[in-house]
Amino acid sequence: MTELEHRTPEQEWNAWGTAEGASPVGEEVRTLLEQFLGVVRRDTPSVDRPDVRVGASQLSDEVRTALAAIVGEDGVRTDDHTRLLHAGGKSTPDLLRRRAGEAESAPDAVVLPASHAQVGALLALCAERRVAVVPFGGGTSVVGGVEPERGGFDLVIALDLRLLDELVEVDAESRTATLQAGLRGPEAEELLGKHGFTLGHFPQSFEHASIGGFAATRSSGQASSGYGRFDDMVQRLRVATPNGELDLGRGPGSAAGPDLRQLFLGSEGALGIITEVTVRVHPKPQEVESEAWSFPDFATGAKALRALAQNEALPTVARLSDEAETMVNLASAHSVGAGEQSGGCLMITRYEGNRIAGHARTSELLAASGGTSLGAEAAEQWSHGRYHGPYLRDALLDVNAVVETLETASTWSKLTETCDAVRGALTESLEAQGTPPLVMCHISHVYPTGASLYFTVAFARGEDPRAQWWQAKRAVGDAIVRSGATITHHHAVGTDHRAWMTDEIGDLGVAVLRAVKSTVDPSGVLNPGKLIP
Amino acid sequence: MTELEHRTPEQEWNAWGTAEGASPVGEEVRTLLEQFLGVVRRDTPSVDRPDVRVGASQLSDEVRTALAAIVGEDGVRTDDHTRLLHAGGKSTPDLLRRRAGEAESAPDAVVLPASHAQVGALLALCAERRVAVVPFGGGTSVVGGVEPERGGFDLVIALDLRLLDELVEVDAESRTATLQAGLRGPEAEELLGKHGFTLGHFPQSFEHASIGGFAATRSSGQASSGYGRFDDMVQRLRVATPNGELDLGRGPGSAAGPDLRQLFLGSEGALGIITEVTVRVHPKPQEVESEAWSFPDFATGAKALRALAQNEALPTVARLSDEAETMVNLASAHSVGAGEQSGGCLMITRYEGNRIAGHARTSELLAASGGTSLGAEAAEQWSHGRYHGPYLRDALLDVNAVVETLETASTWSKLTETCDAVRGALTESLEAQGTPPLVMCHISHVYPTGASLYFTVAFARGEDPRAQWWQAKRAVGDAIVRSGATITHHHAVGTDHRAWMTDEIGDLGVAVLRAVKSTVDPSGVLNPGKLIP
Repeated sequence: MTELEHRTPEQEWNAWGTAEGASPVGEEVRTLLEQFLGVVRRDTPSVDRPDVRVGASQLSDEVRTALAAIVGEDGVRTDDHTRLLHAGGKSTPDLLRRRAGEAESAPDAVVLPASHAQVGALLALCAERRVAVVPFGGGTSVVGGVEPERGGFDLVIALDLRLLDELVEVDAESRTATLQAGLRGPEAEELLGKHGFTLGHFPQSFEHASIGGFAATRSSGQASSGYGRFDDMVQRLRVATPNGELDLGRGPGSAAGPDLRQLFLGSEGALGIITEVTVRVHPKPQEVESEAWSFPDFATGAKALRALAQNEALPTVARLSDEAETMVNLASAHSVGAGEQSGGCLMITRYEGNRIAGHARTSELLAASGGTSLGAEAAEQWSHGRYHGPYLRDALLDVNAVVETLETASTWSKLTETCDAVRGALTESLEAQGTPPLVMCHISHVYPTGASLYFTVAFARGEDPRAQWWQAKRAVGDAIVRSGATITHHHAVGTDHRAWMTDEIGDLGVAVLRAVKSTVDPSGVLNPGKLIP
Repeated sequence: MTELEHRTPEQEWNAWGTAEGASPVGEEVRTLLEQFLGVVRRDTPSVDRPDVRVGASQLSDEVRTALAAIVGEDGVRTDDHTRLLHAGGKSTPDLLRRRAGEAESAPDAVVLPASHAQVGALLALCAERRVAVVPFGGGTSVVGGVEPERGGFDLVIALDLRLLDELVEVDAESRTATLQAGLRGPEAEELLGKHGFTLGHFPQSFEHASIGGFAATRSSGQASSGYGRFDDMVQRLRVATPNGELDLGRGPGSAAGPDLRQLFLGSEGALGIITEVTVRVHPKPQEVESEAWSFPDFATGAKALRALAQNEALPTVARLSDEAETMVNLASAHSVGAGEQSGGCLMITRYEGNRIAGHARTSELLAASGGTSLGAEAAEQWSHGRYHGPYLRDALLDVNAVVETLETASTWSKLTETCDAVRGALTESLEAQGTPPLVMCHISHVYPTGASLYFTVAFARGEDPRAQWWQAKRAVGDAIVRSGATITHHHAVGTDHRAWMTDEIGDLGVAVLRAVKSTVDPSGVLNPGKLIP
């Protein structure tokens, strides 16, 4: 059997990304952690690979043979290492678990279909044989979306879509491209680049996440102000289900009833497997302009972003850090103590393509809204480190600290309330556990009616760091829901947000999702335990 | 019982709009109809009101009492005239039928709820008593959407939402407003205007259509280039169903699973009654700039629109008529024979609010794309007559001609193919019936990936004009579907497009819609015979 190869390097089993990306924290950071968060100086490394307890595969020869009849022998993997690489996603609890050597719940097999037809055949087979199916793209979920839950079935397979990696079609005139679901971010960009196009979708997970995952989770990228959310980009999508296939989207706009694409966007593998999407593309920008700004406080910066959004003056990237995040970013950029930094909030702006024409007008609005230009450098620095954040998390996990992120979105009129509610809930819960946190926040997705709020929280590792985090997470989720905001702006639901779905869409909304699931997946094998309460 | 009153004047029972709007065609037009379409000079007036055969109400005293217990005695109308006013929509076949005195299928009652709670109670009652419910806003459907079909039930009521006419809330900071579903276009604008806002939604039906109807049909207005489609404007919506209510939309963007708002937008009353929507609003524009352009041909004009859309340079209104429509519009504007007109295609552009800043850049792109500016006048003329089109249809029906419209949307790369396919199917079918048509086309909704195509077709009235039109309509629908375009861009499905819904969303898509309907409306009383094949 060949090694499981891919154009995009495999992620580490116990960390974000690849070993090359790792960067251990230095003495200075350890001192800061000690001073500000009370982190006791102690190494908390991952177990070594041989010490990981990977559950044994329960796959019977009969089911293996049936799977192999569809995808070939080489398409059915049951070795421990491949199954370990599909044992879950990349949330902090996921990583803590794998660092502790726990992989008992690894899937019974990893199956590699190479076409839409093979996906359809696999789903029909799994429905018949009652095998749970967890679709797997880049494996970057931070909400338990790729957790190999059995959901009452005896077997669970990870359906790894990496072989669906073709650029199917480019329609240069209509500026659309049809991409297969298994393409990773960089691969899609490389293929589109040959035609002079870009997708413009650059979430922090870009280097590993897949096109299908972007669609299935309603991903939103760092350049969403210029290129939109991923769900907005999708013109057409092809979905395989145990009960047949769907091919949805027949025009740039339509009034032919409900927009069923919007049922499968965000469906997280629970209603079908997205195998192909047709998305808007843009000419690859020849020039890029960047400018960083400083605002006296977060509220003033947020008001400036609102002015841009409501005056159709957004750059391609617009991103505002609160005071705490600004301080930490500057400290880490200059490798100096945070105490030396001046206050204020950093805003990053970046202009590509058509948006360059509006740079001057945007700058005028930002200046009029209380901003001070810092020039291009700080913005370019952000750009260079834009995918690095998750690596820092692993480094901190090594030194007895815990970092996790969460996000929401709210209307402009409730943004401060939501922000305060989240910060309050995190602080209160972790303080009560004896580990007062550092909470940082930024806005990175801006709409005329409101904005996202993205929080990074760091705290000293307690005795049971997973329980410690879940206690805080539950308090935050409740606070978000009480404030009227959404439980997730772009991380999706997975297992972690499932408890709040009833708050989000109501009992009848949940009943509607269940009815749809019963129609496309009557046996319930698709990604059990995700999305639907 | 009081007269059925409303701030917006009632439409005529046998024509579009009000009697004041009517304008009979003159001698010159009759001569042109004779010369170009072979229309035999003959008056074909509507029957008089006393000659209309309004079916008798079958409402039992028991059901009436139960309905009245919810909405009061005054909220249950069974008089012939009120029922006639709810006997269907405003498609040409609808008008031909009523002009012939056929109103046997009028609903058994018109019921007037005054709140969301009353709507919910009525739906529960109707589900229990097995009474079909047809929601009725402005009654402007041109696809049979408000046809009082019984769907196998003994009774059918029209649920007239006119009493749900409040502006519930304005959130000036987030630029959203919450509107009740029964508000008509002008009423909503008047209420929002007091707060300095506009919705920016101005479809040709604006003067009579309702907010709930805009949402339930995915309406798109003439200013969609600037303000978007109605479905894009909706942040939140409240829906009453026989099985409870839905309150959907908790943030400016969300990844909390499928976007269930998109199931109820475009649901045409078949999945619930939308009682309230929260929509984006915009500062009421202080200035407006208009400019008309001439293009040598439709393809060149379309390419110019594509350049605008793909370069983020669209005005608020962008509208391109083909050669035939340009000729007829100019002829009717100047009251001269069409033969005197020069060729070419007219494009209307209009700039409001933020878009004014882009006028110069847009003009540059249009000039570079082969356009010649005609100045403001022709564009302002269009603006003055923008809601007049449907009145002309009634005038032509009086003089032995038939006019109807239909629309679709296609990607830029297939736009010409779709346009030719529609024109070909209409021409072929009506020629085969001995009545070669005049087919006019315009683009009025433009996207980066494609555009709408709106067709107006005029022809000599045959012996059975409804059968004559349906033969053509069937051929066109098939042609649209074959070309890969959508069966409707903004008129919705109703009864008329139902036959093509399987082409649009596939068998499994239809099964999904049925499953959703079974969940929210298990007895099937909601708007039978619409939307779902």
